[in-house]
Formats: sequence, structure tokens, C-alpha cells
Amino acid sequence: MQLVFDDSYFMKKALEEAQLAYEKGEIPVGVVIVARQQVIARGHNLTELLNDVTAHAEMQAITSAANFLGGKYLIDCTMYVTLEPCQMCAGALYWSQISNLVFAASDPERGYRKMGTKLHPRTKVKNGILEEEASELLKRFFIERRNLN
Amino acid sequence: MQLVFDDSYFMKKALEEAQLAYEKGEIPVGVVIVARQQVIARGHNLTELLNDVTAHAEMQAITSAANFLGGKYLIDCTMYVTLEPCQMCAGALYWSQISNLVFAASDPERGYRKMGTKLHPRTKVKNGILEEEASELLKRFFIERRNLN
Repeated sequence: MQLVFDDSYFMKKALEEAQLAYEKGEIPVGVVIVARQQVIARGHNLTELLNDVTAHAEMQAITSAANFLGGKYLIDCTMYVTLEPCQMCAGALYWSQISNLVFAASDPERGYRKMGTKLHPRTKVKNGILEEEASELLKRFFIERRNLN
Repeated sequence: MQLVFDDSYFMKKALEEAQLAYEKGEIPVGVVIVARQQVIARGHNLTELLNDVTAHAEMQAITSAANFLGGKYLIDCTMYVTLEPCQMCAGALYWSQISNLVFAASDPERGYRKMGTKLHPRTKVKNGILEEEASELLKRFFIERRNLN
């Protein structure tokens, strides 16, 4: 068996993180940050558990990656995230100067593109990788929430 | 002597925080968050010391205020910050639904207004309070930095 370290491989890792958020009753969004084909940081949404709007998966992973690298700029890193980042997270990515952003599902309401947030000019963006799986998990979460209330 | 708890009073507290950042070699930005005329959170920029682009004064104070309140929404709270927030911090304020934002100096380059970031529709904004003092501290910092290099 040969492991292929492609976008789907790493997005699956991000989906595993999203699944952890789901199991904790959090909006299921997960992230990994990759450097040299290695996962150097991971995170999942914890805004409810931590009672903190800043505890998005991306924010935690940016802090964690910078800690791993010993420097605050995420040059030559790629963030894989299951949902399009919001203004806050895209704003953090702007400061990090991250090289690549790959997201699965789009967020037509609160996503950074709709909100007009600027990424760093050096950041390349790809989207739609495992979009269906990521959207499916989000939909399942919101349907279950609705049925609980 | 009578203490008046007005915008200048609280912005002076934010400036004290900015001064702490300055003394640590950080871009001097300081914040306090106020509820019922009481400071419930404070913070100053620590991006260099923590090696973390997310360690802006505002982000720390939002986390801290939510912790104090035991809830993630900063309704009926006012943030006093010495510099206009960036995309990331304004994005966090959006999620917090904070009632009031008061900032001293404008940031015509990276401020949230120039970048087009949306605050929460309920957030009221005031600016220019102690603008000169806040700008002066920032200018002094950047001039000293330039002379060091």
C-alpha cells in the first residue's frame, strides 16, 4: 500500500478534527497545518466548550503551528480547513503570511470571500477538496441541533 | 476629587496597557473592556513575545472578558482600544456582538474600515478619544525601532 500525501489525504485529517468537534457538540470544523508534507498543527472548533468566540479551529492551529516552528510566520505552510474561514480567521491568516489555504466547504454567509476579507497577497487558495463530506457533517450537526430544541 | 468614568478615563487605562507593550518592545497597542463602568478585562499586544500573530491586545481581552462573564457574548460591554482594530480583531468583535467599540488612533493602512471588515450590526463605534496620545506612543516606538536597525 502506498500513501499519497495529496490534498485529499490532508483534508481527511482535517475532517477527523471536525469529527472531534462534532462529538463535543461544537459546530464541526477542523483544521490541520502542513509543512514539508507533515502535519505540524491541528485544531477543532471549541467556541462552546471554552466559551470563547476566538476559539475557532483555525486560530488554535495558527498559534500551535507558530509554536512548533518557533516563529510567527507560516511561510511554506498549508492550512487545510473543512469550512471556508471567517473574517477573524482570514485576518489571522493574513498576518501569518501563510503560503497556501485549502478549504473544503464554502460559507456563502459568513465566509471571508463574502465578507470581503483580504488574505495576504502571497497566499494561494484552493477550495472544494472533500467539499461533500465536510458539508454533510455540518448539515447533520445543524439538523440534530434543530431536533434537540 | 471626583472620578469621572467617561471615555477618556477608560482610554487612559487602555493607554497604560499600550505603555506596557511598549516597554516589552511590542507595537504599543492596549485594550480594556468595560461593563457597568468597571474594567473586566485588559490586554496589550504580545505578538513578538509569544511569537503568535493572534496575540493582539484585543484578542486576549475578548477571551478574558468572556471568561470573566462566563459567556462568550460581550453584550453591554465596551472595548476601549488605542488603535483601530485590524481585520482579525474586528472579526472577533463581530462574533462577540460587543455593544460598543471606542478606539483612539485610526489605522489608515490595516484598520478594519480600510479593509472592509464588518462589525456586528449592533456594535456602535466611536473614535478619536485620546488619539494624539495613542499616535504619539506608536510614532515614538517606530522611530526608536528604525534607529535600532
